[in-house]
Amino acid sequence: MERNNAVSDWDRIIIGVDPGTNVMGYGILGVKRGKPAMIAMGVIKLSRFDSHYKRLGHIFSRITGIIEQYLPDEMAIEAPFFGKNVQSMLKLGRAQGVAIAAAISRDIPIVEYEPRKIKMAITGNGAAAKEQVQEMLKRILNISKENILPELDATDALGAALCHFYESSKPEIAKGPKSWKEFIAKNPSRVK
Amino acid sequence: MERNNAVSDWDRIIIGVDPGTNVMGYGILGVKRGKPAMIAMGVIKLSRFDSHYKRLGHIFSRITGIIEQYLPDEMAIEAPFFGKNVQSMLKLGRAQGVAIAAAISRDIPIVEYEPRKIKMAITGNGAAAKEQVQEMLKRILNISKENILPELDATDALGAALCHFYESSKPEIAKGPKSWKEFIAKNPSRVK
Repeated sequence: MERNNAVSDWDRIIIGVDPGTNVMGYGILGVKRGKPAMIAMGVIKLSRFDSHYKRLGHIFSRITGIIEQYLPDEMAIEAPFFGKNVQSMLKLGRAQGVAIAAAISRDIPIVEYEPRKIKMAITGNGAAAKEQVQEMLKRILNISKENILPELDATDALGAALCHFYESSKPEIAKGPKSWKEFIAKNPSRVK
Repeated sequence: MERNNAVSDWDRIIIGVDPGTNVMGYGILGVKRGKPAMIAMGVIKLSRFDSHYKRLGHIFSRITGIIEQYLPDEMAIEAPFFGKNVQSMLKLGRAQGVAIAAAISRDIPIVEYEPRKIKMAITGNGAAAKEQVQEMLKRILNISKENILPELDATDALGAALCHFYESSKPEIAKGPKSWKEFIAKNPSRVK
């Protein structure tokens, strides 16, 4: 699902990733003059690989390929911190680790957001359904029906990228500096 | 801790890795004319990095560097399948995933062994203490006192590599082919 592939058209590009062990979603968000837009989104299907390592290998090569294609400045990961059981968390951690390594190997900084935080940022409701997130993304980013993927993992990934755009666009004062020292360092003109 | 750095001296090189979130151990096992020997072992200390991503980044760059230095043919990972809680398993999974990605990006096949299996292969006791594993490794691989590291994560990693050497050196018949088809394919001369 692609809109615009000319990387140089954008001031900033964020890749959002929703890592899973069966499907990995990704969304590429471009920012131009402070306005976000969807560049691309998609899913990496992993269930056709019989071995765990083949899946991890496929994640690494696909994410690396997507990074080389869109040259994102940052990666935002949807990262649940709680899971059903230790087994599934170990597998999820591995999938995340491989995606993170693909970004690290290209020196791309990574940020992660809990699903609740992403839902809150996009819909105003931390418990929103995935369909609601998708609906809001369509409106916010003006995505036409034929340009939206049915796969919710793809919109979840795009949501992670948009959440990061919102978070990083907040004025420093709203985010709250950790200390006065930090505030003064970042705002020298505001200190008399 | 290094013995011999001439990669071309060996018929086969196995890197063993014991991934952890505070310390990652590694061991390089060389095989020459069917006999295993230690080439190098060491630990990657991660506690000095304050951020989780810096730790993962350090794992990736160090493991990649070690792979480039010793050019192993295979990677054996010590991988516990059970942990205290989902949080620690997610972190462990990420550390494993990053180490796995470093191997994948160099097309190195990966095998994993549970700690119990490694202890069993080295000491004959699946519940052996780490010190016993270290003691047995010293004897099996003729490692002198001054060549052994005090860090048990390093010997654990070397143990994973040796366990893989043992497992992969077992005759096919002992490992048991999965099917007659596989047996026949691997042993054409034995079928009349």
